[in-house]
Amino acid sequence: MKKIINDPAAVVAEALRGMAAAHQDLLTVRTDPALVTRADAPVAGRVALVSGGGSGHEPLHGGFVGPGMLHAACPGPVFTSPTPDQVQAAIEAVHGGAGVLLVVKNYTGDVLNFETAAELAAAEGIEVRTVLVDDDVAVKDSLYTAGRRGVGGTLLVEKIAGAAAERGADLDTCEELARRVVANTRSLGMALTACTVPHVGEPSFTLAEDEMEIGIGIHGEPGRQRLPLEPADGIVRRLVDAVTEDLPFAEGDRVLLLTNSMGGTPLLELYLAHGVAEGLLAERGVTVERRLVGPYVTSLEMQGMSLTLLRLDDELIDLWDAPVRTAALRWGC
Amino acid sequence: MKKIINDPAAVVAEALRGMAAAHQDLLTVRTDPALVTRADAPVAGRVALVSGGGSGHEPLHGGFVGPGMLHAACPGPVFTSPTPDQVQAAIEAVHGGAGVLLVVKNYTGDVLNFETAAELAAAEGIEVRTVLVDDDVAVKDSLYTAGRRGVGGTLLVEKIAGAAAERGADLDTCEELARRVVANTRSLGMALTACTVPHVGEPSFTLAEDEMEIGIGIHGEPGRQRLPLEPADGIVRRLVDAVTEDLPFAEGDRVLLLTNSMGGTPLLELYLAHGVAEGLLAERGVTVERRLVGPYVTSLEMQGMSLTLLRLDDELIDLWDAPVRTAALRWGC
Repeated sequence: MKKIINDPAAVVAEALRGMAAAHQDLLTVRTDPALVTRADAPVAGRVALVSGGGSGHEPLHGGFVGPGMLHAACPGPVFTSPTPDQVQAAIEAVHGGAGVLLVVKNYTGDVLNFETAAELAAAEGIEVRTVLVDDDVAVKDSLYTAGRRGVGGTLLVEKIAGAAAERGADLDTCEELARRVVANTRSLGMALTACTVPHVGEPSFTLAEDEMEIGIGIHGEPGRQRLPLEPADGIVRRLVDAVTEDLPFAEGDRVLLLTNSMGGTPLLELYLAHGVAEGLLAERGVTVERRLVGPYVTSLEMQGMSLTLLRLDDELIDLWDAPVRTAALRWGC
Repeated sequence: MKKIINDPAAVVAEALRGMAAAHQDLLTVRTDPALVTRADAPVAGRVALVSGGGSGHEPLHGGFVGPGMLHAACPGPVFTSPTPDQVQAAIEAVHGGAGVLLVVKNYTGDVLNFETAAELAAAEGIEVRTVLVDDDVAVKDSLYTAGRRGVGGTLLVEKIAGAAAERGADLDTCEELARRVVANTRSLGMALTACTVPHVGEPSFTLAEDEMEIGIGIHGEPGRQRLPLEPADGIVRRLVDAVTEDLPFAEGDRVLLLTNSMGGTPLLELYLAHGVAEGLLAERGVTVERRLVGPYVTSLEMQGMSLTLLRLDDELIDLWDAPVRTAALRWGC
């Protein structure tokens, strides 16, 4: 295992220490329990957005904490859910009196632990709502999931509901917006290589030198198909076809396209893939109105990519464009 | 070779097409010759900053084109200098009547080709100055260099001189600032794995599963030492020691610390390394006033990292903090 780490058991805590140093103007980081919050939290009178999940998907979620997006993130151990206590501590740290919206990727452990935390917080009189993100069209049920998995679409939910909360929208409105984004978002990923969880020490699966996996999960869960490696045109066509046919995205739809690296794929390849995706969507008469290209929802050093499409309306565009100031997404301020 | 590409000879052109689509509000991209310019170039009455070099180091340089940073970037083939004609075309496309500053990483091919372009532009009456960046303390001469190589410090030169140009500083001032940044910047990188140039098709070198290379170049050039893999604390200490002892950075110095991924290293590891570096600098009495953590000057999918230190003064801090709007660096607007 080749990694820049010390004790595999201390990776997340040590990374949080570095994150705290790197973004001390923006974030407050606690390690017991692990918690990343806005430096100015709680924000009185505003709905607070809380998310989290296993570490190893950086910048998700801590990199999306800040004005206009999340109020808190709970980083679990690598690829492992945060505990209910941890989520409860996050809720308590950031609730500003207008309720809390939990954005939860649909994995069994996350769903259970966020649910327990929501009950604990409700018992303290904090109004909590939960929105599950399940945008991955790859598989119905999987290793860690009942139903579809939550992947790249998560950041779109966090950005758009976060922008509404920042503007003072109430809990009902933030929840409705988050559900609207989930309902209109679909993703699919693929991998060229596996990744290695530090405390495991060996790759979570193996792909031969001439193989790729379509529909891979962000924890290396099995996908739809293991296939011979193809040129970028073929890979991207498989992703665009599956994603557009699922919703379906139809001629005349306006979309946001997220071309996401799984971590180890260079930006040069990612831009290339993005160009192919834009061309294929244009052929289908789908108009790309907004785009984001980069490593945003990753799987450690895995080489591969995912495509996420969100069907837009004017309100979603306006909220996407609203100012955001986080470690990983920043514009307008 | 596992990559998301089509024809290895067309990678850069196809990636530029995707980049153009991804950032159409910000950039104008031409492919013959390959050129990335600000959408609003030329900016009349402002010094224009032009850089470039081999592709494969993204987001350097095209990701740093935009208000407050570069006016144009010339992307060569992967790890190969842009041609004099290409650089000349960039100069002509963006000069706004107040002179052009070329920011050139110190590699033999780049130096020659930018120099030729500068002469061609001067013959047309455009005033051109050149600043060489040679911040890598690893080796004196190397495979592609007479003198030290230009690495992570390049983006600091581009940001700070670019901010001055944006504010209307004249060519003398922009050149002086760029030289001041170069004079006060030192870097060192290390690699856990090699990378593969698409048109070569195999890794540029090999490292055993228990080996690392200290002082690696961003094209995979040999470094100072091939050593047994160490924990992060040891790796980062080697980088901090070599960088601080070179200038030297002394107790009481205020610095900007760039903790840079070579591309394939996950953000989780990079934050961990950043935290270690901040701790070691604090021990030395060096004050980290500004920091940047991420994949900024990369080497395709290479796993590894580099540290760059810039000794700051109030003027450099002010220019670093100035608004910037590019694909890869954005704040204040």
